[in-house]
Amino acid sequence: MKNTFGTSVSVTIFGESHGPGIGAVLDGLAPGIPVDEEAIAHRLSLRRPGGTISTSRVEPDRFRIVSGVFGGRTTGTPICILIPNENTRSRDYETTRSLARPGHADYTAYCKYHGYEDYRGGGHFSGRITAALAAAGAIAQSALDGQSIRIGTHIARCAGISDLRFSDLGLTDLESALMSVSKKSFPVLDPNAAEQMRAAIEEAAAEYDSVGGILETAVTGLPAGIGEPWFDSLEGVLSHALFSIPAVKGVEFGGGFALADMRGSTANDSFSVQGEKIITNTNHNGGINGGISNGMPLLFRCAVKPTSSIAREQQTVDFIEHTNQKLRITGRHDPAIVHRAGIVVSSVTALVLCDMLAQRFGTDYLKPGT
Amino acid sequence: MKNTFGTSVSVTIFGESHGPGIGAVLDGLAPGIPVDEEAIAHRLSLRRPGGTISTSRVEPDRFRIVSGVFGGRTTGTPICILIPNENTRSRDYETTRSLARPGHADYTAYCKYHGYEDYRGGGHFSGRITAALAAAGAIAQSALDGQSIRIGTHIARCAGISDLRFSDLGLTDLESALMSVSKKSFPVLDPNAAEQMRAAIEEAAAEYDSVGGILETAVTGLPAGIGEPWFDSLEGVLSHALFSIPAVKGVEFGGGFALADMRGSTANDSFSVQGEKIITNTNHNGGINGGISNGMPLLFRCAVKPTSSIAREQQTVDFIEHTNQKLRITGRHDPAIVHRAGIVVSSVTALVLCDMLAQRFGTDYLKPGT
Amino acid sequence: MKNTFGTSVSVTIFGESHGPGIGAVLDGLAPGIPVDEEAIAHRLSLRRPGGTISTSRVEPDRFRIVSGVFGGRTTGTPICILIPNENTRSRDYETTRSLARPGHADYTAYCKYHGYEDYRGGGHFSGRITAALAAAGAIAQSALDGQSIRIGTHIARCAGISDLRFSDLGLTDLESALMSVSKKSFPVLDPNAAEQMRAAIEEAAAEYDSVGGILETAVTGLPAGIGEPWFDSLEGVLSHALFSIPAVKGVEFGGGFALADMRGSTANDSFSVQGEKIITNTNHNGGINGGISNGMPLLFRCAVKPTSSIAREQQTVDFIEHTNQKLRITGRHDPAIVHRAGIVVSSVTALVLCDMLAQRFGTDYLKPGT
Amino acid sequence: MKNTFGTSVSVTIFGESHGPGIGAVLDGLAPGIPVDEEAIAHRLSLRRPGGTISTSRVEPDRFRIVSGVFGGRTTGTPICILIPNENTRSRDYETTRSLARPGHADYTAYCKYHGYEDYRGGGHFSGRITAALAAAGAIAQSALDGQSIRIGTHIARCAGISDLRFSDLGLTDLESALMSVSKKSFPVLDPNAAEQMRAAIEEAAAEYDSVGGILETAVTGLPAGIGEPWFDSLEGVLSHALFSIPAVKGVEFGGGFALADMRGSTANDSFSVQGEKIITNTNHNGGINGGISNGMPLLFRCAVKPTSSIAREQQTVDFIEHTNQKLRITGRHDPAIVHRAGIVVSSVTALVLCDMLAQRFGTDYLKPGT
Repeated sequence: MKNTFGTSVSVTIFGESHGPGIGAVLDGLAPGIPVDEEAIAHRLSLRRPGGTISTSRVEPDRFRIVSGVFGGRTTGTPICILIPNENTRSRDYETTRSLARPGHADYTAYCKYHGYEDYRGGGHFSGRITAALAAAGAIAQSALDGQSIRIGTHIARCAGISDLRFSDLGLTDLESALMSVSKKSFPVLDPNAAEQMRAAIEEAAAEYDSVGGILETAVTGLPAGIGEPWFDSLEGVLSHALFSIPAVKGVEFGGGFALADMRGSTANDSFSVQGEKIITNTNHNGGINGGISNGMPLLFRCAVKPTSSIAREQQTVDFIEHTNQKLRITGRHDPAIVHRAGIVVSSVTALVLCDMLAQRFGTDYLKPGT
Repeated sequence: MKNTFGTSVSVTIFGESHGPGIGAVLDGLAPGIPVDEEAIAHRLSLRRPGGTISTSRVEPDRFRIVSGVFGGRTTGTPICILIPNENTRSRDYETTRSLARPGHADYTAYCKYHGYEDYRGGGHFSGRITAALAAAGAIAQSALDGQSIRIGTHIARCAGISDLRFSDLGLTDLESALMSVSKKSFPVLDPNAAEQMRAAIEEAAAEYDSVGGILETAVTGLPAGIGEPWFDSLEGVLSHALFSIPAVKGVEFGGGFALADMRGSTANDSFSVQGEKIITNTNHNGGINGGISNGMPLLFRCAVKPTSSIAREQQTVDFIEHTNQKLRITGRHDPAIVHRAGIVVSSVTALVLCDMLAQRFGTDYLKPGT
Repeated sequence: MKNTFGTSVSVTIFGESHGPGIGAVLDGLAPGIPVDEEAIAHRLSLRRPGGTISTSRVEPDRFRIVSGVFGGRTTGTPICILIPNENTRSRDYETTRSLARPGHADYTAYCKYHGYEDYRGGGHFSGRITAALAAAGAIAQSALDGQSIRIGTHIARCAGISDLRFSDLGLTDLESALMSVSKKSFPVLDPNAAEQMRAAIEEAAAEYDSVGGILETAVTGLPAGIGEPWFDSLEGVLSHALFSIPAVKGVEFGGGFALADMRGSTANDSFSVQGEKIITNTNHNGGINGGISNGMPLLFRCAVKPTSSIAREQQTVDFIEHTNQKLRITGRHDPAIVHRAGIVVSSVTALVLCDMLAQRFGTDYLKPGT
Repeated sequence: MKNTFGTSVSVTIFGESHGPGIGAVLDGLAPGIPVDEEAIAHRLSLRRPGGTISTSRVEPDRFRIVSGVFGGRTTGTPICILIPNENTRSRDYETTRSLARPGHADYTAYCKYHGYEDYRGGGHFSGRITAALAAAGAIAQSALDGQSIRIGTHIARCAGISDLRFSDLGLTDLESALMSVSKKSFPVLDPNAAEQMRAAIEEAAAEYDSVGGILETAVTGLPAGIGEPWFDSLEGVLSHALFSIPAVKGVEFGGGFALADMRGSTANDSFSVQGEKIITNTNHNGGINGGISNGMPLLFRCAVKPTSSIAREQQTVDFIEHTNQKLRITGRHDPAIVHRAGIVVSSVTALVLCDMLAQRFGTDYLKPGT
């Protein structure tokens, strides 16, 4: 299924950048989960553009829960969340309808949909649809809160500047850090790094250019034994979902690509008994052995490519006329989206974990009092 | 489904390292595809350990096609390939049954299967099951050959030594390189690099240690328009399957993590008209825009962690007794598996592409003469 | 996935009887399919209650297409159709919250959702959600129209009165009959039978009771070769979807249960050459051999149980207090729903066939001009 | 997926009538389930032809468990069961390769597989593949035994002769009846009816003809709350699987088609408190309300058409030459398969229920001691 993901808990997304609205149907979540509209609104605000480093198209994201919530709690039946598009200026896009914006999906959409696609603002390919994932993710996180499973994402790197790393923190510090970044619209641990990143983004914007970055995510509280040996490994299912997020071009777990240069004696995470628990002394495997969680924090990183829309002139083609062309993208765009993508990564992670927990422990597992 | 992957074309795998055998059921492939048992045997030989840099457990991989092939061609119904285990020495494993080998799945398997798991040689988690993927992948590649879709994987990096890069080659050179690496048991483009890598692996082995690496894969001939905007993006589906391969801890497409440090003006692949075709002038997006193939070569890289089994003593736990322990792994192991994993990556890629092409163009698309 | 059905073309439904609204997300349909809002409205009107034989709750079904349609045609991306609930009177239901209405899902919903379910008017179990299927089915039928695939459903039997049978008609008469019943709000071929059925329904209503019936469906124009030998047989997939329709308790193909009393020499449909075509001389197998369409009309019948809500007093339990109780259902209910269910059966059939055709021939097959 | 069914617990089948063998991969079943090879062999013997009313092709069904069982118990990983074909006489089929046997899938297979299909003995369409379902079902039933969930199927009707009905029995008698029929190779409750049925089958055989019948199945011990309101209703999922069984052309739950002629006041099953339990006073809904189990016995019936292979001459076509032909089927065939299909229906039911219980309560639910 093309726009539906998940097995026991699934999410279906729909919408186009400049159509009437976007949304998600979140199905299979346990009944009784508190649905806090303010928490959803907060999550949407973290994804929403703002300030000097974002597009000036700001949608109020006045979402509406159409189904699946009764008396402030999930019923267990599908939750449809609808977010109207209110601030659309379609005329920005029509003149360049058949010019392929480099880095964007205009040309591939044409190959796939034969010209029937809604080409305005990227249509169904627009990053705007991630607002639906963020809203659904807020409810998924509410379910995980009941099991003390915490998720947070920060900008590990942006425009060549690095933040502190989750992987260097002990469990207590990590949990505080997760709490802290989950509230920030520019989620960086080190305030100096944050300031430098912002400056670099503004510099790129001034040069009609854009920057990318790396997001690092950690999850604490996930029990051991989640995931499958082969195709439904925790890495496999998470990466599948994470690559759905526009601009993500790499996903690595634990040491990731750095493991390629390590020796086994370093990369192997040796085990120890710690009171009632079994822990690993390092976490190069990112909390996953053989596709299955081992009880350590889940750790992974996503590479986010620089925003494709830039204001400077670019070489391209008219894919209908089959001619070479120059293109200067006007309209409203972000010099960076890495800071806005953090909450989307956390949301997608929450959705996947709700699904995998429900598959493992049943559909009632996340219900209050279970 | 836990051990089944794919939608229109699917593969189901089964087996344990030390049980009677392993195998795969490949379902949904178009009828009429030539099935060449020698090509399957060759592919299995590329995955099979050999020489001084591999385990001394060598399985002959005398596979048997139980169903789905008639008159040397696929029938269109499920193909069961059975590979018996012949060279098993189970006594190697019994004494260490409850000692978690660091980097392995022993402890997580116990958390998930409560002690009922077949613990001999990693059981169902064993890399041996990838032989079934390689065999199924040989048939999938035969189907792709009919459409001139070529796949190859080489060791881009191993033990700190780098090979040439597919991404630096023009299309003609790339196709020759794919052909060349597909026949090598140690698939490296640059013979000097290959020699250094082998030396480094032997050095690690001599120190009772192991090394990892990075595999780079390219696909040529894939038409534009394959993949979906969101959850079934080409990146999402491929990564899901690739992370199923044991030891893969990172997957990146095109520039991947390096994109995080680029500016948009560099990372964007500008388009040009080239005769009848539309091409991109660079390929930082790895042949994929918005989750959909754009007609350029598909390019991705997998991080392979160093082999977990090393001969030196390691700190670990007895997860049944809940005590700290020392462990020295005996038995037969590889100081590196990155060279053997290459054909598995190519095989998994072939399986995924057959599925995505069949979803896009129908179940007859890969049939001869279509 | 619980509220999503289909593989290449899928539909996701959501909503509760007395919540803000209901709807469907139709995904994967080919791009370029004309979307005629009047056709959708007409189909909704066929399902809508009306006259003396239906509930007095009449919803205007002012649907809104939120996504996936651009310039009056499908884009190929998910189509969200939203139908607000406007005429809800929730107070009818609250006093009987924990009394299990016989024949309804109140008790099983409580077992599954632990009291968090929206109990008003059956909540998510309400037949009202079939309006979303009818709307989505209208678009699916528009896609099938392009391939001259016609679907129609009539009341073969109601309250003991039988209509003529599709299975007795030649192809030309059958196609006219399909056309005719597709426009009727009380879809019966024989006007006398229709009159008697209406009278019987009114009689049951006068006795505070309800009646059921049998729906017969035919499909013409479906090519041979659709369906799979085993689990995705045409019968299997269609029945799966048809049993989703509330009150359907039996599904039979071709001769169905009557085949059990036939001899093979009668039940076997012998083949003949008819010009360019191969036909069967009878159609006891309902157009399906070995799970796969044979080019003859698809024929099947659904048993619809009498409406569960009846006005007379019934014995039941309070499932929270765990006591025996008497219940007299007030509110607005139908003495029969079999006539309203016909369009739902046709709609579900259209959705399933679009999916199976897309799986077989690719996602572009139903696109105009393919 | 074409030959794979199930979500949390799935089964994949493969094989052809005259190929090397057939088999199944059963995946996702809880670890620790006892696997009794004798019980599997017994189940296979119930499906195996025998005596005067069956084909003279008798396969010994010497199955082999290739994976997923360790120490006599399931490991939780995929169980591959392989059943070699030993008694094949392919020459019976070759001369009639392009003659469509009426009632069989020869012609539709040709439409779908374009002549690449293995046409010997029905190939992958052969009823022989149900042996794999019976074997997998034996293990599934072993898992259900741990929860005291009992399944039995008998011939409710054959050649016009009716047996007693499960639906007329009280719970205690029903459980005895289930036990009794599960051991019979000709599963009929009433010995007189059994005798008459056998005589009627022999009579049909003597006239070179065949008969069909109706199978009735009951399940006791299934907890309330299993199933989903819409697409994954218990009826929907069960029927999907049941229609996979060759010759099944109708499925009805509870009163089924007879409900169509009832009034609501009869068809509604009123509720009562019975000690700790809530029961319904009748069971016209077959233990299912709104798609979800209500704790009463599950009751359903399958229509089995008469065996398609009959020895008398039939009219048909040569679908390659496109000519009318006469066909007289030689070889070894059954005048009835309804008695042999009973254990297949029970097996498929066991597989589906294991899946639905695992989805509802988690993958450990059926594990011993849970």
